[in-house]
Amino acid sequence: MSEVKLFGAWFSPYVKRVEMSLNLKGVEYEYIEEDLENKSPLFLQYNPITKLVPVLVHNGKPIFESSVILEYIDETWEGPSIFPKDPYDRAMSRFWAKFVEDKCSDLLWKACWSAGEEREKAAKEAEEGLKILENEIKDKKFFGGDNIGLVDLVANYIALWNPILQDVVGFHPLTQDKFPNISKWADEFCNDSFVEKYMPEKEKVRLWLKRAVETGSLY
Amino acid sequence: MSEVKLFGAWFSPYVKRVEMSLNLKGVEYEYIEEDLENKSPLFLQYNPITKLVPVLVHNGKPIFESSVILEYIDETWEGPSIFPKDPYDRAMSRFWAKFVEDKCSDLLWKACWSAGEEREKAAKEAEEGLKILENEIKDKKFFGGDNIGLVDLVANYIALWNPILQDVVGFHPLTQDKFPNISKWADEFCNDSFVEKYMPEKEKVRLWLKRAVETGSLY
Repeated sequence: MSEVKLFGAWFSPYVKRVEMSLNLKGVEYEYIEEDLENKSPLFLQYNPITKLVPVLVHNGKPIFESSVILEYIDETWEGPSIFPKDPYDRAMSRFWAKFVEDKCSDLLWKACWSAGEEREKAAKEAEEGLKILENEIKDKKFFGGDNIGLVDLVANYIALWNPILQDVVGFHPLTQDKFPNISKWADEFCNDSFVEKYMPEKEKVRLWLKRAVETGSLY
Repeated sequence: MSEVKLFGAWFSPYVKRVEMSLNLKGVEYEYIEEDLENKSPLFLQYNPITKLVPVLVHNGKPIFESSVILEYIDETWEGPSIFPKDPYDRAMSRFWAKFVEDKCSDLLWKACWSAGEEREKAAKEAEEGLKILENEIKDKKFFGGDNIGLVDLVANYIALWNPILQDVVGFHPLTQDKFPNISKWADEFCNDSFVEKYMPEKEKVRLWLKRAVETGSLY
């Protein structure tokens, strides 16, 4: 029996962050694809609180929330660091990871899934966040510098899922014209040989999002 | 010149978390009360990104976001730990801190500041979160066990600000009847001799919130 289990869903950017972190560290683990429409008793036993993926189980103890799991992985296993070693740099990485999530990704998602005034408001707020992010990534290959780190992993939604969802709904708050640096980073990230191995196929994501938009349900 | 500066606002629960953490550790620092209606050039130079308090400046380098600052303080200075030492316990503390913020405090705040359907929705969601928290704190003095830790600091809004705001707006999603364990914790927390020293005066908070509700502005 493996001592590390990851409960996930193939289409979840949150799960992919954890998968990539485990693989960056070279941790062996058992991956369990969870049917989110019909959650298994084992999964609900491990995560009765949020009932969401990802859930990492280490020696029988469950951990939830991708941001919490990434900290745990970096603290627990040797191998390449996901967080910078220097406390100040680590603080800045945590700040940018939170910024990407709260001020960019969540708003981009919301802008694509809403309409009218609500869409306009979300798109405007996303644009404000993206402008700041655009400046942060200029002159750098990855947010982590030469190597992929925490902020890159957290920004994975912007790189792969968002462009596909934008096309599916026909609304484009993030374009190469407006955000050339972020777009360049997204290309670098998606084409990175390590990242490529663990990200879902774009066509599969497109079909999933198309169906989700048509049915109004992600599952 | 002090090597540690904290830019804050006396009424901010986020700032109080940081103040209490610095004092738990025994860190000497200069506290600078920032006028949020008329922010100082020095403050904006340190935090041009979010322009929010708290900002901790250590040896000239600024750190923003209270959750990020608390991690930095615990990593940087000796003294009583804010986060548990064991990696799994630390992960669970991070999870509960996020849960308190996202699923309880933010929703309680929103329920008090909104009306009609929006209020009902926020209050219902807050109640769901609080039920889970109610179970987590049963049989414990503090979330951190016998001593105040990360989750207690992050939950400070629930202990002091929320009851006052509830009275000011005349809407009570969190009552002792419904949540006896959380209410007991809130009493323990507010009456703790260390906490008492750093929390704002309740009457001052009441007047500030009353004015905020009347004018629709926090400043």
